[in-house]
Amino acid sequence: TEVKVAILTVSDTVSSGAGPDRSGPRAVSVVNSSSEKLGGATVVATAVVPDEVDKIKGILVQWSDIDCVNLILTLGGTGFTPRDVTPEATKSIIEKEAPGLIFVMLQESLKITPFAMLSRAMAGIRGSTLIINMPGNPNAVAECMEALLPALKHALKQIKGDKREKHPRHT
Amino acid sequence: TEVKVAILTVSDTVSSGAGPDRSGPRAVSVVNSSSEKLGGATVVATAVVPDEVDKIKGILVQWSDIDCVNLILTLGGTGFTPRDVTPEATKSIIEKEAPGLIFVMLQESLKITPFAMLSRAMAGIRGSTLIINMPGNPNAVAECMEALLPALKHALKQIKGDKREKHPRHT
Amino acid sequence: TEVKVAILTVSDTVSSGAGPDRSGPRAVSVVNSSSEKLGGATVVATAVVPDEVDKIKGILVQWSDIDCVNLILTLGGTGFTPRDVTPEATKSIIEKEAPGLIFVMLQESLKITPFAMLSRAMAGIRGSTLIINMPGNPNAVAECMEALLPALKHALKQIKGDKREKHPRHT
Ligand code: NA
Repeated sequence: TEVKVAILTVSDTVSSGAGPDRSGPRAVSVVNSSSEKLGGATVVATAVVPDEVDKIKGILVQWSDIDCVNLILTLGGTGFTPRDVTPEATKSIIEKEAPGLIFVMLQESLKITPFAMLSRAMAGIRGSTLIINMPGNPNAVAECMEALLPALKHALKQIKGDKREKHPRHT
Repeated sequence: TEVKVAILTVSDTVSSGAGPDRSGPRAVSVVNSSSEKLGGATVVATAVVPDEVDKIKGILVQWSDIDCVNLILTLGGTGFTPRDVTPEATKSIIEKEAPGLIFVMLQESLKITPFAMLSRAMAGIRGSTLIINMPGNPNAVAECMEALLPALKHALKQIKGDKREKHPRHT
Repeated sequence: TEVKVAILTVSDTVSSGAGPDRSGPRAVSVVNSSSEKLGGATVVATAVVPDEVDKIKGILVQWSDIDCVNLILTLGGTGFTPRDVTPEATKSIIEKEAPGLIFVMLQESLKITPFAMLSRAMAGIRGSTLIINMPGNPNAVAECMEALLPALKHALKQIKGDKREKHPRHT
């Protein structure tokens, strides 16, 4: 596979077994149906963790540094409740921020619902892994992926160091 | 009162008595007329401080930690002059950033004036208090509140830990 | 000259002599043709550095602290490749961030190409110098400048401490 994707559901409810994971399977489905547009993407790992900074950081670092995943999507934990800490966990382990990805996700999500302004999602790069926070709402995953798809394949090629992808608007 | 609001005018001019506080009273009026949409909001405190990081931090921490205010609006000190330090003071005491709120304020303000791009406003959460920087311009307060109103009530409920508000787009 | 501008091309390729600097001369041309709208701008310095944090930081600090340049435009190094470190170098030496400038550059660039979401550009203030990252693509420089021009003159006056420029929308 060209692009290895991992999906992390961040949810106390799902983690404790008190409710089903609706976002994770939806995200797997979205990635699979976008596989070609992403340059040949396959979901190689999924996991569920509670809304705890150390748990979130641990799996993000393992998937980035040890499993060398190309793209990690986190689902949930980006809102305003006291337990929402996914952006803080993500920010603490990324080396470079990618605010342009956040911009397009916000811009497109706000066209659908004003509640999109409550997303505190973060995106960034650790080593050769792109990490993107998405809301926990299952529909939001599809919406956010749709917003990113036009440039995500190029993003992933750039992270791998492909110089030809440096100025994609000219290719 | 359900939602306790505090309003901080940040201005050397007003603080020194060299000019009237035009933004503060306007913000009180905007909050009062939006009270219901905010879930029952009342202004419980107002203050004026000079453009000094320590003074700004001091009152923000007091209102958050001791007075347990739900929402703090700061007015002014978000521009490019050497004295403008409200975003830096705010960033230093918040625990979580809320960039989506900044996005909608910028997006809506830019429809009114290109000078909105000069806002360096920050928004974020400290404990159970939401802190939002707004420009010092009296009209900007109304414009920014208008942009935030569709989701601000939900934001304040989420901060209080109301789980039912976690995915408001589905309720 | 009222507004001293310096232009930094960040590129391993140009720095090593392996390719021509297409962005730098274009940026000089854009600044010259926008000189009046910027309040009387002149390019007083240009330089080329490789994609290395220390080299980038060194010249930014020199131009800000010693040469007292009013505006620095960096070109390139804002993407997703492992060598792209201009935003990180910039963030490490600015004292205040200017996210509103990034917002308008992204908003306008995204109207031209979805690849604009791959810009990780940073903007901010060090002392009395405004530093803005722009993409390395020669066309992007003109597009970004066009987006900023309506407020950039006021930004530069505010940084100099001109109080009359504090609420430009009312002047
Ligand atoms: Na927009």
